[in-house]
Amino acid sequence: MKLTCDRSTLNNNLSLAIHAVPSRPTHPVLANIRLFADADNQRIQLTAFDLSLGIRTSFAATVDESGEIAIPAKLLNDIVSRLPDGPISLENKPDETLTTLTCLTGNYELRGMSSEEFPELPSIDDGKTITIGVETLVEGLRGTLFSTSGDETKQVLTGVHLSMGHHGLEFAATDGHRLAVVETIDDDAAADESLKDVAVTIPANALRELERAIVKHNGDEVVKLHFDDSQVVFELEDQRVTSRKLDGSYPAYRQLIPQQFETQVSVDRRQLLSTLERIAVIADRKNNIVKFTLDDKSQTLALSVDAADVGSGKESLTVQLVGNSLTIAFNVRYVMESLRNLQSTEVQLQLNTPTSPVIITPLGGTKMTHLVMPVQIRD
Amino acid sequence: MKLTCDRSTLNNNLSLAIHAVPSRPTHPVLANIRLFADADNQRIQLTAFDLSLGIRTSFAATVDESGEIAIPAKLLNDIVSRLPDGPISLENKPDETLTTLTCLTGNYELRGMSSEEFPELPSIDDGKTITIGVETLVEGLRGTLFSTSGDETKQVLTGVHLSMGHHGLEFAATDGHRLAVVETIDDDAAADESLKDVAVTIPANALRELERAIVKHNGDEVVKLHFDDSQVVFELEDQRVTSRKLDGSYPAYRQLIPQQFETQVSVDRRQLLSTLERIAVIADRKNNIVKFTLDDKSQTLALSVDAADVGSGKESLTVQLVGNSLTIAFNVRYVMESLRNLQSTEVQLQLNTPTSPVIITPLGGTKMTHLVMPVQIRD
Repeated sequence: MKLTCDRSTLNNNLSLAIHAVPSRPTHPVLANIRLFADADNQRIQLTAFDLSLGIRTSFAATVDESGEIAIPAKLLNDIVSRLPDGPISLENKPDETLTTLTCLTGNYELRGMSSEEFPELPSIDDGKTITIGVETLVEGLRGTLFSTSGDETKQVLTGVHLSMGHHGLEFAATDGHRLAVVETIDDDAAADESLKDVAVTIPANALRELERAIVKHNGDEVVKLHFDDSQVVFELEDQRVTSRKLDGSYPAYRQLIPQQFETQVSVDRRQLLSTLERIAVIADRKNNIVKFTLDDKSQTLALSVDAADVGSGKESLTVQLVGNSLTIAFNVRYVMESLRNLQSTEVQLQLNTPTSPVIITPLGGTKMTHLVMPVQIRD
Repeated sequence: MKLTCDRSTLNNNLSLAIHAVPSRPTHPVLANIRLFADADNQRIQLTAFDLSLGIRTSFAATVDESGEIAIPAKLLNDIVSRLPDGPISLENKPDETLTTLTCLTGNYELRGMSSEEFPELPSIDDGKTITIGVETLVEGLRGTLFSTSGDETKQVLTGVHLSMGHHGLEFAATDGHRLAVVETIDDDAAADESLKDVAVTIPANALRELERAIVKHNGDEVVKLHFDDSQVVFELEDQRVTSRKLDGSYPAYRQLIPQQFETQVSVDRRQLLSTLERIAVIADRKNNIVKFTLDDKSQTLALSVDAADVGSGKESLTVQLVGNSLTIAFNVRYVMESLRNLQSTEVQLQLNTPTSPVIITPLGGTKMTHLVMPVQIRD
């Protein structure tokens, strides 16, 4: 293997792939990046794989001799990220695992492993494919990822569920306490009979890497999602993110969303968020509960917290309220995370009773629905 | 107590004082900030004290009623830091420990403690005083603090030693492996007979807070250092940092610094530092040892590292060398930290043999001397 490439290109691709390198590899070879140099196409391919999440990224280089090798991922990344910009050459002799990296100021020898031991990334030979616009995909992920469960024992709830809605792909995530749904519009996809029963749940960590790959290499317009019974593959022009699917049936979340509301409130998103951040200082020291008091007459939303040994707080915001006055309590963290993951200037809160869920939606833009369950309080 | 002050002023002063609030207070009152409102002078004073380090800061405010109270430091700081700019009023009734904070958007009640339980900061009634220019002080601290020991069992080595040199105050710090000395110039102080035998060792953490206070409130030109047998007090116009002194005699570090050198090398500081940062990637995985090979003929400094199971690295820099060729090894961390804490474009390395210390000095500016002990290697 013998190649020359640009330092910053190698660095960008390494810093993308390294996210699929496990911190505690179950097999030594998984601590490596598989580097494949292809003289025919004058390209380099980097692959990392933790047996669940896989990332492959490729870029143009001057390849004098094809070859492949597994190089310790962190070591290579740490050195390349500290090198000054300029050409870098990588070379190793056939059947040797020592790679020589030569830069303008010196050279490094890195002890790696044979790439033969490196497992192949899963591929989908016989499955379905959906083509998703990059902006649609990013919007769907941003609007739902925060709502997945971080508790590995929660199985399907640790992922985002993708299904075909009436007008296009629908993204959903719930951790049991709140729910986020994003309905995207793609009439071609919605009309495709073969995609009607699409229903796939993908681990949040793989989707976060996909989002990172898209944001970092923002040249692509569409992403192809291939999937079969066990695996999903997201294919960008120069990158590929693979992941196992999450098994198990996803909760029937649609039935949780009320269709009618007695009270609707419009409020400035940032103002509500920054007020909640202050109230949360006291709520966090007790049980995270914040009381929302909506008053029809004064058109105000009062936020209050009372933590016996610590203190109390009360702030009031002007809102536009249609419907009934109401007092309802929430875990402040869920409402704050919801508001942080919406982009609009104003949001709408839709409510019924103190024990039924609140729906938070942006005013304008893509159809996003955030649902938060209230907390019952004694008054 | 009743007062009104500006949010950002209160916030700045709180974020300074909070550094003296212990994370695990030995007495509950120490988790508080003592707030003293003085109607006579229309000022507020904030005090925090962990029984070793004390910080007091004061600022102008509208004080309607004098009073004092101990308020939970983190709670107050967390709320004030999240409030929008504008006036804030604080009020409590005599003999009550509940303080009401009123801002433009609402109000908070914070449960505190009586300030009577809050210990007084140490004061120096009968000691010595040195007046130090702010720039001199900051330069002395920046040039030495990094070299103090972080190991609490190392007693005096956890502090910076201040003594009167031939031309002014001298700062020194050593952790047993390296030494940093900054000689400042102040002929008035050096000529003052009463200061001739000044020798005081001050905990590094107190000096870091002093540096922060100076940088944050950069209106002062001089700092007064008062000290007696057990305490030091740094007095700025609106701030005061107090600390216990470190007991015990400080090592006679002067005798460690060679007076003559066989080899002198001038090298670009940033270039040497960034090269060492790359070499350190491999050195850190073994024993931190980097070999310096100085060659008189080629006027180069080669840096190399060899870690059997990991790999090896070698880089070369052009230098100006007067004297003998030499191979010497160091713990790469010590050389890097030294270079990071010098400001000059070029530095000079002065050496004798592979087993005698290297002296690193900036070219130009204040007289700073960094000494690093070499590591013996078998070749």
